[in-house]
Amino acid sequence: MYFAMFQQMKKMLGQLDTWLDAAAAFAADKKFEPERFLAFRLAPDQFAFVRQVQATCDTAKLAAARLGGKDAPKHEDREATIDELHARVRAVIAFLDGVSAKDLESAAARVITQPRWEGKTMTGADYFLEHAVPNFFFHLNQAYAILRHNGVPIGKRDYLGALSLRAPDVTP
Amino acid sequence: MYFAMFQQMKKMLGQLDTWLDAAAAFAADKKFEPERFLAFRLAPDQFAFVRQVQATCDTAKLAAARLGGKDAPKHEDREATIDELHARVRAVIAFLDGVSAKDLESAAARVITQPRWEGKTMTGADYFLEHAVPNFFFHLNQAYAILRHNGVPIGKRDYLGALSLRAPDVTP
Repeated sequence: MYFAMFQQMKKMLGQLDTWLDAAAAFAADKKFEPERFLAFRLAPDQFAFVRQVQATCDTAKLAAARLGGKDAPKHEDREATIDELHARVRAVIAFLDGVSAKDLESAAARVITQPRWEGKTMTGADYFLEHAVPNFFFHLNQAYAILRHNGVPIGKRDYLGALSLRAPDVTP
Repeated sequence: MYFAMFQQMKKMLGQLDTWLDAAAAFAADKKFEPERFLAFRLAPDQFAFVRQVQATCDTAKLAAARLGGKDAPKHEDREATIDELHARVRAVIAFLDGVSAKDLESAAARVITQPRWEGKTMTGADYFLEHAVPNFFFHLNQAYAILRHNGVPIGKRDYLGALSLRAPDVTP
């Protein structure tokens, strides 16, 4: 299930990549600089769009690294254009491509910590469900909401992407 | 993992329940009717707050029912007050309380469909990862974003809730 959920996160990062295109196309159509989106927020004390995208990427990247026993690629948080955000998203998709089901075999039992927890730890299972998955969807959806609020024509299908639907059984 | 994820959804519905309290307290403090929140949206063609809460509830309820082989409780989508939204959220938490790990044992292999799929189906595993989980977090986070945009003082801690952190190992 860990591997399957990371595959799903990878899919959703691919959807986020298409929202960036939609934002750039909207800006071109309305004749404004697409970089304006990077500073938009829904509230003055909320992360701006650029930080929401970075945090979406980091949540997926760090969770896969911690649970898969890999070193995560470093990113300097200096993105200033839509193209640079594309590159960040695609770098994380590429990193997730390198994390296998086998890498994640002992994910549930790993001991996870991060500096802000001041020495406290979580099991891999708790960290994944209580922290990584909800945070990933949090920043992904706040990024979506910021674009949506500012007129970018994206909707639920752009969020979910293609579903693995199977054709109806045809009984002759 | 199915059971664990539904436990996490239940936790997050409990967090949503606290955001409703925060919205009501904010309205009382600013002296406006808390019911105004129900009609707020981030874009004119987006679901209003009331529908985001209903959809969050329904996604969790219907996924647990379909994957657990249970009948879901019916809700008429007539909520018009914060208290009625509280009741809706709490009814779904109570329903999820009745879905056991054993009920979900064959979740992955179930065949899932819904009217809008026109006879097409998904496996339980695909439905859960590609549809139920992302949709649950979508509506939950759009509800959060609508409140946040309108000044309700909620933040990431109100979103994640308490984490299962373990005390550091103390080596004497």
